[in-house]
Amino acid sequence: MKENSAQGLAGITVGETAICTVGKEAKGLTYRGYSIEDLANHSTFEEVAYLLIYGLLPKQKELDNFKKKIQFFQNLPTPICQILEQLPKSTHPMDVLRTACSALGCLEPETIQYHETSIVERLFSFCISALLYWYHFHNSGRKIKVNNEESTIAGHFLYLLYGKQAETWQQRALDVSLILYAEHEFNASTFAARVAISTETDFYSAIIAAIATLKGHLHGGANEAAMKLIASFENEKTVEKNIHNLLVQKTLIMGFGHRVYKDVDPRSVIIKSWAEQLTNNKSKKEKFLIAKRIEEVVWNEKRLFPNLDFYSALVYHFLEIPMGFFTPLFVISRLSGWTAHIIEQRANNRLIRPNADYIGPELRPYVALKERI
Amino acid sequence: MKENSAQGLAGITVGETAICTVGKEAKGLTYRGYSIEDLANHSTFEEVAYLLIYGLLPKQKELDNFKKKIQFFQNLPTPICQILEQLPKSTHPMDVLRTACSALGCLEPETIQYHETSIVERLFSFCISALLYWYHFHNSGRKIKVNNEESTIAGHFLYLLYGKQAETWQQRALDVSLILYAEHEFNASTFAARVAISTETDFYSAIIAAIATLKGHLHGGANEAAMKLIASFENEKTVEKNIHNLLVQKTLIMGFGHRVYKDVDPRSVIIKSWAEQLTNNKSKKEKFLIAKRIEEVVWNEKRLFPNLDFYSALVYHFLEIPMGFFTPLFVISRLSGWTAHIIEQRANNRLIRPNADYIGPELRPYVALKERI
Repeated sequence: MKENSAQGLAGITVGETAICTVGKEAKGLTYRGYSIEDLANHSTFEEVAYLLIYGLLPKQKELDNFKKKIQFFQNLPTPICQILEQLPKSTHPMDVLRTACSALGCLEPETIQYHETSIVERLFSFCISALLYWYHFHNSGRKIKVNNEESTIAGHFLYLLYGKQAETWQQRALDVSLILYAEHEFNASTFAARVAISTETDFYSAIIAAIATLKGHLHGGANEAAMKLIASFENEKTVEKNIHNLLVQKTLIMGFGHRVYKDVDPRSVIIKSWAEQLTNNKSKKEKFLIAKRIEEVVWNEKRLFPNLDFYSALVYHFLEIPMGFFTPLFVISRLSGWTAHIIEQRANNRLIRPNADYIGPELRPYVALKERI
Repeated sequence: MKENSAQGLAGITVGETAICTVGKEAKGLTYRGYSIEDLANHSTFEEVAYLLIYGLLPKQKELDNFKKKIQFFQNLPTPICQILEQLPKSTHPMDVLRTACSALGCLEPETIQYHETSIVERLFSFCISALLYWYHFHNSGRKIKVNNEESTIAGHFLYLLYGKQAETWQQRALDVSLILYAEHEFNASTFAARVAISTETDFYSAIIAAIATLKGHLHGGANEAAMKLIASFENEKTVEKNIHNLLVQKTLIMGFGHRVYKDVDPRSVIIKSWAEQLTNNKSKKEKFLIAKRIEEVVWNEKRLFPNLDFYSALVYHFLEIPMGFFTPLFVISRLSGWTAHIIEQRANNRLIRPNADYIGPELRPYVALKERI
């Protein structure tokens, strides 16, 4: 990636938000004023999603109601199942998610009565159900029953993945990662959602623009890319030389550095401790050591720190989640932040339409087809 | 729409482009240095699409080859037909297009060998075939044969719509409108495509982000909205009073004004003359008079001029194109501009990730669930 300060809007303020801050001196992260450490330690993903969307932490009744509605929306309409069956096994799960959400927007379109807050409750459960339905159909031929008794988003995902209720610690590890992924100011996918909604397009379209944008490995796709890197090592001994060679070749090491954070990603500290807690066998301990060694070498050579994606990848791997689902889990979490931003943009909208500097050819006379040489 | 100069990036330059300029003093429009008037008068849409994508007007052989490849791509894979059959008749055609392109991205993903220039040739024909297949299936139950002998994009669209070859003047009217819609610098949908591709997502994803963004009636959706306005009048006599009332109620009149042009939209001049040429019966003449009267009243009251969307709507209406297809036609044309911008962004990429001013609550202590009141 070339450095090009004229592009990328790096450090350029393009609007206001009341949702999230990366904190004073770019060191901390708060959602609606609450620190990410407090939220990751004391809250659940559903509380955090409610906080982001509605601006306040929910009271018990509000939370119960919110969770009930999310659980209610686990079902898949028959046309969606038929569409999912048509998408090849080889498809990237992000493309499956993009297509499933787009199709749902055809079947259950936004209306005055059925809008952002209801549709996002629907999408939390729907994305999981759609993804796992597609996965099992193409891997084992089974048309799974997607409705279950799980009242949390992490529980629903792991239930459909494992085919049984997950352990509490598994659910909590996933839940914390969802809290950390939920919101992050004007990142590229959120900005894409705001650009889309600024034209007064519908809610689904803005979410789909965000999913399409998140997929890239300079953004959400980094967690999958990070896992591929970690998995490429058999043990920590070969890390230093190989990472050094990659850096000499100017290969971008995914899961390191950040546009906004300059010293540390506070989310990485939290998810790294979860990754360590999950190392309950020899193979996991080895993977964790490899990851720590990569972290050391990248720091020593480039002074780059791991961002959220690096150790999240390891947590997902330890939860036996297929690699292709890593970025879709980011989507499921970030639905909350995107929705908050869409609501905020709609409340004080102006079409986002910038200008460009023209560097192309000057006005020139037309040349007829026969005269072109 | 509130005026909010802190948002919307109005007048803010966010990057460079060699593709298009809105001209000196914001009065003219050129694609790769050729004036829009020359292109609309002397060129065809396929030549213009080639120009935008490759940077040069094609020679005869290049053009023939380009058109052959586009025609070759008219077919629909069986899974796409099955997916289209699942999307309800009531779906907005823009949502059908978004879903169909997303599904195609699953079936025929981008690879190193199969990338931008091939995929856009595929999408020109595919979008038309998918849209018309869906339309006829849900309106008459027919599963139409989408392959035909038409060698142009306008011809292919009208053939599938009419069920027979269109007259030359019909094809040319649509062709000119496609030339005019092909490219327009950093408009919202193009900018969304650039934001998406800047994360290194795939080509389809960037196009889908653009389609999702174009749908809004502050952008591509304006042509459909303009037609609804024109169609709401029985004759020109009631125009003045009703438009006046709408303006008093601060209703946005779609198809008027522009973020960049300040005096006139040069494309509107061209498409208006085409609308006038197509008024070959009393009813069309009446509609044209209504439109002209709306133009006069909006100018007198607000000093706003019609943009491309206003008279394009009338041209499409005169071609008996269903209203829901107006914005999809904008998509089919703009695929060329989006592709040019995606190629340009990829050639010198930097992640587009701006900052925001934080206006939310200060850091506050966490409140446990039981203590929330």
